[in-house]
Amino acid sequence: MTQTSEPQAVDDPAYRAAVIDLMGAIAYGELSAFERLVDDAKLSPTLADKIALSSMATVQFGHVQPLLDRITELGGDPVAAMDPFHKAFDVFHAATAPSDWLEGLVKAYVGDGLAADFYREIAAFIDADTRALVLASLQDAGQADFVVERVRRAIAEDPRVGGRMALWGRRLMGEALSQAQRVAAERDSLAALLAGGIDRPGLDLAAMTRMFSRLTENHTQRMAELGLAS
Amino acid sequence: MTQTSEPQAVDDPAYRAAVIDLMGAIAYGELSAFERLVDDAKLSPTLADKIALSSMATVQFGHVQPLLDRITELGGDPVAAMDPFHKAFDVFHAATAPSDWLEGLVKAYVGDGLAADFYREIAAFIDADTRALVLASLQDAGQADFVVERVRRAIAEDPRVGGRMALWGRRLMGEALSQAQRVAAERDSLAALLAGGIDRPGLDLAAMTRMFSRLTENHTQRMAELGLAS
Repeated sequence: MTQTSEPQAVDDPAYRAAVIDLMGAIAYGELSAFERLVDDAKLSPTLADKIALSSMATVQFGHVQPLLDRITELGGDPVAAMDPFHKAFDVFHAATAPSDWLEGLVKAYVGDGLAADFYREIAAFIDADTRALVLASLQDAGQADFVVERVRRAIAEDPRVGGRMALWGRRLMGEALSQAQRVAAERDSLAALLAGGIDRPGLDLAAMTRMFSRLTENHTQRMAELGLAS
Repeated sequence: MTQTSEPQAVDDPAYRAAVIDLMGAIAYGELSAFERLVDDAKLSPTLADKIALSSMATVQFGHVQPLLDRITELGGDPVAAMDPFHKAFDVFHAATAPSDWLEGLVKAYVGDGLAADFYREIAAFIDADTRALVLASLQDAGQADFVVERVRRAIAEDPRVGGRMALWGRRLMGEALSQAQRVAAERDSLAALLAGGIDRPGLDLAAMTRMFSRLTENHTQRMAELGLAS
């Protein structure tokens, strides 16, 4: 038998299912982040702030369709692929509804940053085409500078804000980790993706632990950029 | 004195103020329509419908920034320019909050159509550069086919829906006209714009009446496309 091409990860049905799962999770995450950002923008103190936050929201929404198209390319159904992830994201958002504009800003910054870090880690284990798509979908929507400036200014005006926001950041991290654990426990395909397969190296327990400490370090650094203890 | 160029409408401060007013009204209208569409998308029966409606919303949001940039070019302050129009749009949306998905669809279709017709009529009275911008901002975001198909299907499944939606369409038209009248009465600059000025013809009362009957005819036609009596 002559081999016409290298064995491709996407030819493996289990791998394909896992990638469809991953795209579904990211797409639903971006869709729900979009909706929450538009909601949170209603808390804006000025119309200029509202437009800035709404603009970030629409950039996020723009990432959804390419992910859904990739699911279709891989033979999946985009709506079905998002389905298993509704609950985790919806519970996360319900548990972390911001009570004011600043909480909304910190949530956008910390939550998106954490999600992006996590997807970037996972992207190391997937084929190059899908990886490029995932990385493109994580492009910063301009949050960073805008949020950092606003949060630092608020703390400068009233230092007590810093303590309240530090607590809020810890709560966001806790809720995100608890939902991520639930998803990992329920979705065998994603766990299998991390464990490796045809032409893909996997993660052993030690590597998994190092990944979680990288996520935590990045979170700490983001909180510090906002001027907050983590 | 040698004249280096034709007198331009935008050199007239009163005209410029009126155009800034107009851009402010359209920009705030698009911004508030964006927010309402994202809200109404939450009523979607399926995730595919939600994505379709959210996608229309983001197209609408994309029109806001160019209008604000034009206000700045004309020497105005974008946020201040939108300010006089908050109340009219907010009252309109509060009075016409959809109670279900179909009401939301009909509102998006009928409301956007009416607003677009109105701005197109006014665009006939402004300078070419601003007119091109206004017309670009009114590009259909793909609502038409999507909404017509969904509403017609719902009526086919349950003909009583047709009666309820026809009443809803009348209510939307009534609320829109009552807010438009309030704005016209309060904003002298917009009324002056319609009355004409340097190098611009104006509207007399007969022409104004004809304009309103064109708006009504177009509304009737849109309702008919949805399969509804108006």
